[in-house]
Amino acid sequence: MALSEFELIARYFDSPDFALPEAEGVLLGIGDDAAILRLPPGEDLAVSIDTLVAGVHFPADSSPEQIGHRALAVNLSDLAAMGARPLWFTLALTLPEADEAWLAGFSRGLAALARRHHVALVGGDTTRGPLSITIQVHGCVPPGLALRRDGARAGDDVWVSGHPGTAALGLRQLLAGGARDEAARVFAEPAPRVALGLALRGLASAAIDVSDGLLADAGHIAARSAVAIALERERLPFSPQLNSLADRDDACALALGGGDDYELCFTAPPRHGAAIAGAAADLGLACTRIGRVLAGQGVECAGFVPRAGGYQHFRGG
Amino acid sequence: MALSEFELIARYFDSPDFALPEAEGVLLGIGDDAAILRLPPGEDLAVSIDTLVAGVHFPADSSPEQIGHRALAVNLSDLAAMGARPLWFTLALTLPEADEAWLAGFSRGLAALARRHHVALVGGDTTRGPLSITIQVHGCVPPGLALRRDGARAGDDVWVSGHPGTAALGLRQLLAGGARDEAARVFAEPAPRVALGLALRGLASAAIDVSDGLLADAGHIAARSAVAIALERERLPFSPQLNSLADRDDACALALGGGDDYELCFTAPPRHGAAIAGAAADLGLACTRIGRVLAGQGVECAGFVPRAGGYQHFRGG
Repeated sequence: MALSEFELIARYFDSPDFALPEAEGVLLGIGDDAAILRLPPGEDLAVSIDTLVAGVHFPADSSPEQIGHRALAVNLSDLAAMGARPLWFTLALTLPEADEAWLAGFSRGLAALARRHHVALVGGDTTRGPLSITIQVHGCVPPGLALRRDGARAGDDVWVSGHPGTAALGLRQLLAGGARDEAARVFAEPAPRVALGLALRGLASAAIDVSDGLLADAGHIAARSAVAIALERERLPFSPQLNSLADRDDACALALGGGDDYELCFTAPPRHGAAIAGAAADLGLACTRIGRVLAGQGVECAGFVPRAGGYQHFRGG
Repeated sequence: MALSEFELIARYFDSPDFALPEAEGVLLGIGDDAAILRLPPGEDLAVSIDTLVAGVHFPADSSPEQIGHRALAVNLSDLAAMGARPLWFTLALTLPEADEAWLAGFSRGLAALARRHHVALVGGDTTRGPLSITIQVHGCVPPGLALRRDGARAGDDVWVSGHPGTAALGLRQLLAGGARDEAARVFAEPAPRVALGLALRGLASAAIDVSDGLLADAGHIAARSAVAIALERERLPFSPQLNSLADRDDACALALGGGDDYELCFTAPPRHGAAIAGAAADLGLACTRIGRVLAGQGVECAGFVPRAGGYQHFRGG
């Protein structure tokens, strides 16, 4: 049965699954020419937009639940990296056909993550075409507290949350079609580090989410802050799955070059080390000091020669 | 030459073409995980997102300048229909390849319209895939002044700006490949009615932009406002191009069923008629009273039997 755009929106997106009784500042949501939203008084707006294309940003045979989860997760991760509190999101969904089973699964995965982060769907657009999902997230942050990329200073420590490279190992398992472990789940359901981003307000001097790979993303901080970053190979926080790899260089390459973990890489003055460790412990999330910020430029990890750079969308990625 | 995502952003979008010296409230623009934006104090945020897919929303052989113009125009039109003042936009661009000639043209068309409306590009995402453009616009509106779809009341007049149907005639000319007149230009370069939307604050009781066709879009106002709308065929403001059609029923079908003009259809109490006519005259824009709001439901145009409904994305459109 063909669904009209209006029926489709009503059935899968303007639905109780997405109703957040605690939704904040939504004066007018789905169903008009624009949503009307009210920011918490005195706070600034943080916005980020990201597109996922089937076969480019996720395996084409991913479940619709996983695609729905990922599409929102990668965007919430950008707000996390700014220290912004998520409030609302919009969804532009392009589909080859109105496949109701797919839509039901996609909507389920999307709504579950939205509820977990109290972020309300306030508008969108559905169009016919090759499968692609664009989400824009909107958050708030008090003036001056956003975690920008350009605030790192020589002498700062460099930190990373979680165990980068695990998702890349999981993707490799999924593509190989053989045995899978926890790494495959880490890839399939990235957990945006929103709470950590909020905890780092006033502590971190710069932050970025790791989507292109730790080395590449630390390099973005270095470039925007006009500093050098030196990572230490022996400090990289390998997950049990990475630790189980016989080839240590391979594990290191995954940790430094693999994206898709959506962990946070951040810098902070050494005097904030104890507060950061305390915040991480409160959240039950590993945060590891992996290097230093130095005068100069560029990023390196002593003892590691990269086999390939971070993911480059228009360069054979 | 293959361009990386970063080079591409720098060359075509983080460029002087998009630099607005008067950009308002942009604390942090392109180049971080999120943009940080500050709304004018006391105003609410209006957001709308729309996707254009090649071959669905514009002829696949449209010039890149026209595609860039259209992608922003259809979004600005949504802000116009809310009476919101445009401030910022984000761009999610999916391209099969980094074609520099195409990007230069697209960027030119986009930047020209952005400058005309003082709207700043503050972030985006570029991905590889089938050509598709998603833009989200952000505007501001004082509390309570947004032009919603649900405010029409029985006794109100129904108005429309410009000459709906002209763009549909222009599209027909373009697809036929024969002679073209001003109608083809109206289709190729829709002019969002932003200034009219601002002028209608406090005057109009409801508004929508005409993208699905006048009858269908007036129907959305009727449905959301729980009223009936009766249009009068003899009041429809035909453009000279529509007037030149020998088949009057055809001209009427284009005026009532054609989208793509991005005019505003709005309702207002009769006592505001003179103020609306004065505002329209100030803007040099035709605004015509074309019907009445009545108790009841649905929309009709006496004497006209529609040949087809408005454009439905998932119903053979």
